[in-house]
Amino acid sequence: MPKIVDHDKRREKVAEATLRVIKREGMEQATVRNIAKEANMSVGSLRHYFSTQSELYVFTMNLVSDRVHQRIDQMNFDGPPLEVMLNLLKELVPLNEETRMEMEVWLAFTTKALVDPTLKPLSEKVYGELRGGMVHIIERLIQLDLAKPDLDKDLEIERLYALIDGLAMHSILHPDKISSEKIESVIAYHLQLLCK
Amino acid sequence: MPKIVDHDKRREKVAEATLRVIKREGMEQATVRNIAKEANMSVGSLRHYFSTQSELYVFTMNLVSDRVHQRIDQMNFDGPPLEVMLNLLKELVPLNEETRMEMEVWLAFTTKALVDPTLKPLSEKVYGELRGGMVHIIERLIQLDLAKPDLDKDLEIERLYALIDGLAMHSILHPDKISSEKIESVIAYHLQLLCK
Repeated sequence: MPKIVDHDKRREKVAEATLRVIKREGMEQATVRNIAKEANMSVGSLRHYFSTQSELYVFTMNLVSDRVHQRIDQMNFDGPPLEVMLNLLKELVPLNEETRMEMEVWLAFTTKALVDPTLKPLSEKVYGELRGGMVHIIERLIQLDLAKPDLDKDLEIERLYALIDGLAMHSILHPDKISSEKIESVIAYHLQLLCK
Repeated sequence: MPKIVDHDKRREKVAEATLRVIKREGMEQATVRNIAKEANMSVGSLRHYFSTQSELYVFTMNLVSDRVHQRIDQMNFDGPPLEVMLNLLKELVPLNEETRMEMEVWLAFTTKALVDPTLKPLSEKVYGELRGGMVHIIERLIQLDLAKPDLDKDLEIERLYALIDGLAMHSILHPDKISSEKIESVIAYHLQLLCK
């Protein structure tokens, strides 16, 4: 019987190794050689699964993106609207070890996308998806007649998005300067101030 | 007569070359070899000015930080307080090519500081200085009796800081998605909403 190799599982295993290397040593050390070593495989085998480094990065970041989507899909959307919105936004800032690692890696990836055009489409796709989440929240506040009447929808979308990504960035880069509780309080405070 | 070499000028020249390499090719390509080539000097000469890569990075980022300080020191602080505050905050987001380059490089540097402990003190120093600017703005709004009475000072400081850094990050990473005018409008809108 031929040996069955689960191609997708191996690719995921390599992606997991990539995440660990980026998290531990930074994007500069996420070379094919170092990732192969971390994944306990030869450079040749790794090249069988990913022919270029960029292909590997894109696969890894899609894995991260899928996980965030899965967590959001599994969320409970019943309950008071502001609470649901707060819970949704909390999925987009690093409030636990898993999301912290994902976001650290995402920041490294998206910074690299500035100089590697092959990474740009995915970086822009995720930017657009997250912005869509912000549009949804602001529009929902207006539809439910919770929002202050003089709220500028367009500026509120950019403001909420920048606030969330700024909090995420501060938490990733300076975890000992801003606590999870503080981040959560700022988001809740901001939502409250959008409402009547 | 001995040849006079201006040691500091040469260090600055190397730092300028470092900025260009990081901007064009990313932090991963900012190797001693590539920077020496960009600065038109041998690796040996470069090592004479900077014995380690981290020392070179720290010098370069201090140069960026000094320039931001100089620009702020030269600002006109007369005029309506909200206008002065807006102008101050505008120095912290990439609204022109010079500040865009500085902030792209700063983002690469500060992301690298996550995995390179020698860069951490400078990264934290700048974080603290910028946060100090936010404290100043919020306290000034309160002192001048412009701020809404129910404003939560502590949360407002973090909110303003996250908003500014989030806008800067969006502008750096996705310059075609958010215009300079939009960024300026969001900041002005936010300041207005803090006031009575």
